[in-house]
Amino acid sequence: MSHKSRGINAERDLIHKFWETGWGAMRAAGSGSSQFPSPDVIASNNVRTLAIECKLTTATRQYFSKKEVKELVYFAEKFGAEPWLAVKFFREEWYFFSIDDAKETSANHVITLEQAKSRGMTLTDLVA
Amino acid sequence: MSHKSRGINAERDLIHKFWETGWGAMRAAGSGSSQFPSPDVIASNNVRTLAIECKLTTATRQYFSKKEVKELVYFAEKFGAEPWLAVKFFREEWYFFSIDDAKETSANHVITLEQAKSRGMTLTDLVA
Repeated sequence: MSHKSRGINAERDLIHKFWETGWGAMRAAGSGSSQFPSPDVIASNNVRTLAIECKLTTATRQYFSKKEVKELVYFAEKFGAEPWLAVKFFREEWYFFSIDDAKETSANHVITLEQAKSRGMTLTDLVA
Repeated sequence: MSHKSRGINAERDLIHKFWETGWGAMRAAGSGSSQFPSPDVIASNNVRTLAIECKLTTATRQYFSKKEVKELVYFAEKFGAEPWLAVKFFREEWYFFSIDDAKETSANHVITLEQAKSRGMTLTDLVA
């Protein structure tokens, strides 16, 4: 299975978990096909709406480009959603970080597996 | 261009118009690929959120199946969005109908071009 297919499967699994907890959620159409910003996943429970940029990795750190983060924040502002970064490390569950909690380097935002395990939010934390 | 491609282009045009009016909007990933309900387009201005089922036709009437409408309403309830049906007739702009305003037959909901022109809402009406 390609990295792209694994990513889509992992996003579908996340959608599934949101529905299980009573939230509505959906995946966006391929973001590359639009000139407008779009998160990978959007979820809401009628009170909170989450715009989520999702990454899957087998490495122990995951980068989000400044452009990706900027577009996520822009979408979230217009839509009225909370912007979240989500990383699924190999054999781990999804971990969620606010923009402020994802360390910013000169070129990127980065989330390490160590940070995820020590202070990342799980889906259970996120929807609590 | 296939009917599907024309539909996607028409949805992209709708997304574009929402952004032009200051709303955030995105297309859903192919709805056939998910076991969970998903509208074709979702849009929000931070106050109102619209879940929209979109159809493109060259005929003078457009049907929405009861299943499609039921799933749209279910998604909208969970997500906290208003459910809307949208039809783009050939060489016309998008027209929007609430579920109650789309005539229900024994098998479907139907919107005719005549109804659209006489009492359909345009995007301008919808976001007013």
